[in-house]
Amino acid sequence: MHAIRKPYLLFLGDVGSDIFAKTAHGLKDWCPEDCVAQWRLPDCAVDLGLEELAPEAALAAGARSLVIAVAPIGGALPPHWVPAILAAIEAGLDIVSGMHGTLAAVPAIAEAARRRGVRLHDVRQPPAGIPIATGRKRTGKRLLMVGTDCALGKKYTALAITREMKRQGIDASFRATGQTGILIAGSGVPIDAVVSDFVAGAAEILSPDAPQDHWDVIEGQGSLFHPAYAAVTLGLIHGSQPDAMILCHEPGRMRINGYPDFPAPSLVTAIRHFEECARLTNPAARVIGVSLNTARLSPEQRSDAIEAAMDETGLPAFDPVASPIGDFVRGFAGALDHAA
Amino acid sequence: MHAIRKPYLLFLGDVGSDIFAKTAHGLKDWCPEDCVAQWRLPDCAVDLGLEELAPEAALAAGARSLVIAVAPIGGALPPHWVPAILAAIEAGLDIVSGMHGTLAAVPAIAEAARRRGVRLHDVRQPPAGIPIATGRKRTGKRLLMVGTDCALGKKYTALAITREMKRQGIDASFRATGQTGILIAGSGVPIDAVVSDFVAGAAEILSPDAPQDHWDVIEGQGSLFHPAYAAVTLGLIHGSQPDAMILCHEPGRMRINGYPDFPAPSLVTAIRHFEECARLTNPAARVIGVSLNTARLSPEQRSDAIEAAMDETGLPAFDPVASPIGDFVRGFAGALDHAA
Repeated sequence: MHAIRKPYLLFLGDVGSDIFAKTAHGLKDWCPEDCVAQWRLPDCAVDLGLEELAPEAALAAGARSLVIAVAPIGGALPPHWVPAILAAIEAGLDIVSGMHGTLAAVPAIAEAARRRGVRLHDVRQPPAGIPIATGRKRTGKRLLMVGTDCALGKKYTALAITREMKRQGIDASFRATGQTGILIAGSGVPIDAVVSDFVAGAAEILSPDAPQDHWDVIEGQGSLFHPAYAAVTLGLIHGSQPDAMILCHEPGRMRINGYPDFPAPSLVTAIRHFEECARLTNPAARVIGVSLNTARLSPEQRSDAIEAAMDETGLPAFDPVASPIGDFVRGFAGALDHAA
Repeated sequence: MHAIRKPYLLFLGDVGSDIFAKTAHGLKDWCPEDCVAQWRLPDCAVDLGLEELAPEAALAAGARSLVIAVAPIGGALPPHWVPAILAAIEAGLDIVSGMHGTLAAVPAIAEAARRRGVRLHDVRQPPAGIPIATGRKRTGKRLLMVGTDCALGKKYTALAITREMKRQGIDASFRATGQTGILIAGSGVPIDAVVSDFVAGAAEILSPDAPQDHWDVIEGQGSLFHPAYAAVTLGLIHGSQPDAMILCHEPGRMRINGYPDFPAPSLVTAIRHFEECARLTNPAARVIGVSLNTARLSPEQRSDAIEAAMDETGLPAFDPVASPIGDFVRGFAGALDHAA
């Protein structure tokens, strides 16, 4: 499993717009305490409002890793960023990247890191040595995000739930399965990059044995209703052995994104299928709530959508961006504690 | 997709027992017309009864590839076999291996192959460039093997069905998803070695568009009821878009092999779940028969098991090793032709 040293110096390069800085904003939103400073090249149009520090000064201020927190066009490291990366290595910072091209594939970076003894983390690459799943039931509790489709708020929901659980004094950990989540958590496994024989095993090591009242809140990936990515989702479900799942959905999304021949399932169909599949490795698994992404709706439409989801499923429903989730978290954590 | 040049010279090394020669026997059983000769080192205890030819002579007799058709202890190429491999390369044969360690990782072999211009096929390695699944419905018909568990006869069933279809003049291709199958077919994708995001895409390229009366008979992998490997199975199902499935089962196997906490499903439960999952990409998908591995049963027990499976499921049941399957093949191929 990736284990990244925090806190971070956020490298923003010279990108021209916030469009390329989603990762940087995600880090600042979800782990501000881990973001020591930002570092930018001339003409960078993005500003997170953090202190501006070069690597040496950031290290002195506590930083341990430089995170490439922007997505360059094309996904590969622009050659004119390499001197900055080398400078960070020379200062003694680990380097962390979520780009498609790996840091280790740039000879100057690989060589400098080896010589200086710092670590390179390509968080899209799975770690070595992932085992075959054992199916053994682990201690502690697990809440997994599932969805009617990809890209509709599973990561956001998991982060918001984890934050609220901690606020209520519940012992909880966010467990990341994708690159942005891994940067936020400082650890995790990019589950969709794992060889299929090992997906369930990767999910098992992602949420190891824990105290009985501990909750792992696991970022989901893909959907059982997606014609390309359902395998990722099923392996993640089986290895996670979730006690509880939250179904994430975007009201009004009638089709799988990019796959117009594939209708999105109804909430009830999705709940039944996720529960049936999850019960292979945890017979008690159940969906306990519905998280709606209502960003495109008016306040009235939002209320109607939440009401409709509750009526359809008989479960609590909310938009974690727009609704208070304190009562929901208090309710399920208490109920499942008693059930255990 | 792997595309291996046939026919083969089967290399048997100096293994001490037929236990290590399952691949060689599988090739001789299922594609005897592709096995030109065998080649053995001194003290080899295995004999396939084929003509004994060294590489030069095998090439003259038509061979195009040397297949390492035995499994050395530990799964890695024994160093004392390397000179034989190099001799085959010098003669101009491609080299094909299903071992865990790759041929390309042995510098002398990689260098000799490059210099001589022959190809190295490590059939456990997936090919490069596998696309994300599109979900697009392809032309032609597809029959996929599924199972209540791993290792209970899916490959054997697919091969036997393909052979019988061809015997009846039906246009059919065996599509291989594992290393032995790939050697038999001369092509295929080792589906369990594919990164999970691409499993369904790999299954799509494995059975491309075909004439409307053509059948791809696809070797299955894993099981939806296996706590480690279900992801592989689901991706294979979704990408295969099967019109029909055959459920493979071993009567008396009450537990998933090696996972004593996991019961094997009933035939009816398995049929319902495979059909539900397959209908995401082919709404007409259905299980049309049950293939039983009755190798450990007496003739009386075999008849009883077949009778019981038919009673339980209402479907034809057979052991492809022990039962005639001509009527079954004639029945489903005719029925599904009319339905199309």
